Amino acid sequence: MRSREVRLIARPEGAPRPADFELAEVDLPNPKPGQLLVRNEWLSLDPHQRRRMLDLADGSMPPFALGAVPAGRAVGEVIASEVPGFAVGDRILNHAGWREVALIDTGRDRAPERLDSNPGTPIQWYLGPLGASALTAYVGLFDVAEMRPDDVVYVSAAAGAVGGLAVQIAKVTGHTVIGSAGSTAKADFIRDELGADAAFSYRDGPVAELLGRSAPVGIDLYFDNVGGEHLEAALGALRTGGRVALCGAISNYNADGPAGAPSNLFAAVTKGLTLRGFMVAMYEKRTEDFRRQMREWLAAGKVVYPEAIFDGIEGVAPGFIAMLAGDTVGKALVRLDGRDLRTSTNYG
Amino acid sequence: MRSREVRLIARPEGAPRPADFELAEVDLPNPKPGQLLVRNEWLSLDPHQRRRMLDLADGSMPPFALGAVPAGRAVGEVIASEVPGFAVGDRILNHAGWREVALIDTGRDRAPERLDSNPGTPIQWYLGPLGASALTAYVGLFDVAEMRPDDVVYVSAAAGAVGGLAVQIAKVTGHTVIGSAGSTAKADFIRDELGADAAFSYRDGPVAELLGRSAPVGIDLYFDNVGGEHLEAALGALRTGGRVALCGAISNYNADGPAGAPSNLFAAVTKGLTLRGFMVAMYEKRTEDFRRQMREWLAAGKVVYPEAIFDGIEGVAPGFIAMLAGDTVGKALVRLDGRDLRTSTNYG
Repeated sequence: MRSREVRLIARPEGAPRPADFELAEVDLPNPKPGQLLVRNEWLSLDPHQRRRMLDLADGSMPPFALGAVPAGRAVGEVIASEVPGFAVGDRILNHAGWREVALIDTGRDRAPERLDSNPGTPIQWYLGPLGASALTAYVGLFDVAEMRPDDVVYVSAAAGAVGGLAVQIAKVTGHTVIGSAGSTAKADFIRDELGADAAFSYRDGPVAELLGRSAPVGIDLYFDNVGGEHLEAALGALRTGGRVALCGAISNYNADGPAGAPSNLFAAVTKGLTLRGFMVAMYEKRTEDFRRQMREWLAAGKVVYPEAIFDGIEGVAPGFIAMLAGDTVGKALVRLDGRDLRTSTNYG
Repeated sequence: MRSREVRLIARPEGAPRPADFELAEVDLPNPKPGQLLVRNEWLSLDPHQRRRMLDLADGSMPPFALGAVPAGRAVGEVIASEVPGFAVGDRILNHAGWREVALIDTGRDRAPERLDSNPGTPIQWYLGPLGASALTAYVGLFDVAEMRPDDVVYVSAAAGAVGGLAVQIAKVTGHTVIGSAGSTAKADFIRDELGADAAFSYRDGPVAELLGRSAPVGIDLYFDNVGGEHLEAALGALRTGGRVALCGAISNYNADGPAGAPSNLFAAVTKGLTLRGFMVAMYEKRTEDFRRQMREWLAAGKVVYPEAIFDGIEGVAPGFIAMLAGDTVGKALVRLDGRDLRTSTNYG
């Protein structure tokens, strides 16, 4: 079975470049007992993958190996199975990353998840509004930041896959929400399409000033997808008893030095603030609750979930680079042509 | 009524110097309705007073005014009262700071607290093991950091008024405890007198290395009295789900620039850490529980509470300077001679 895959061949310095990746063709064996082959239909492009391209000695997730395919979520169809409980034709979610066809070894790899074949549920939603990005938004608000009824909520990277849902979940549950992103067009999108009460482009001035103008009474909850100057501004704007969900620090992923730290962390003492970090894997037990609630909101049209789609395995590197550059809105995905693995088809 | 008081006359740059303070004599009027006079017996010297000597525009507590007496806790005896419920001879705790005699105006000032006249309870314990420093240690562990049965606990400034009790409370409730301070003698004291399982002087090397040697399996709870390099080391040593009580940042109080921030805050994301700041005033509702428990421990000899005593109102500035320089162990106090306000008596 021929397949193509995208490998990391150099650790990016600053913003990733096409030369940091290579597209390679491989020949996959037939599965042995405990293995299955999945033809991927959709690949997820995620900011946290950028971080693992660095070789950091900071006790965080291990770095991706050079010359190997970066791990990541994908959904597709089983095309051969030697694993009890998985049959040809099953749709599954796997973590094998940027591959057209993946050989999953259940003894070695993270277990695949069989997905409901619900005709009303596009399969890529399991990478999106029913998947890890959305679960991140959901538990970040409810479990990590312990959102309260009258909270004023601020979300950074609010046009992104996680932030866009955090804005909508906070709105649909009755909160005042402020969002920020990297362009005026995105700010308009956050306000007009996602329903935020206020939004700004952080390129329009110091974040602390822009946030102060959007949230004149201050904020109670900050969903931090960015770190750096945004976190510092939020610490300044948070009211007594405020909470921060530390989800990511995308502003630092492309940086060479250590992550820029807020100079005003002492505000946490004087205002009794709580900062809590998390990885979505720590909250997987909440998946059932989350999906039940999210299906309701999706069915009622209460949340929207825009996708930035790149086509074909050749779209992985450009899509990933565009997402990190802030050129996408919503969930960044690669759509694969599942029928002919040697011809990339542009779905335009 | 003649009294003497210590005023702040210059904002300290770096470590405070004697010239930043002045001793002045004042003539106090007889109390009007709603006012009382208290002859202080003990004054509290606290690290947080240093912070308020800076004029910081960071949303924290307002700075002390120049030319005025810094606010702070004191205990003493009512010598004249026009306040219903307070009689001459009552022992009270007040917040009027470094004065021999204080005129308390209940319409303007923070309310005084009448103290139990228990012959077994030295009155200065209400500034110490039954007072705000100890309540800080208690709620910092139990409420702020939500201490759990098997936590490995690390306390910085562990020979200080707050840290010393945090060490002992964590030990008496069955935890493994590591303490640090600024000298080998203090480290010995923390281990030998306070009962910590391990202790080190942060002057002996990088804190991260010293902490790693004292806590080879890592830590679960960090009681942060220091900030800076200590917080950074703790973030590195904390295990998944670990918690930090952000109590103070004494390492920054004498600094001119913004507080040194940890460069590894992202560890909070990857390890799911919680950092929670607090001021003891936010937890005053816990005073009753805390005192009941602490009286038990004190009566059973399970906690000790060393005091660093400076004598007379002239001892305020030298005592405050010595405490901030790390030259004291335990609670720093000024003892006033309540009988003759114009002659300082050395109790040596």
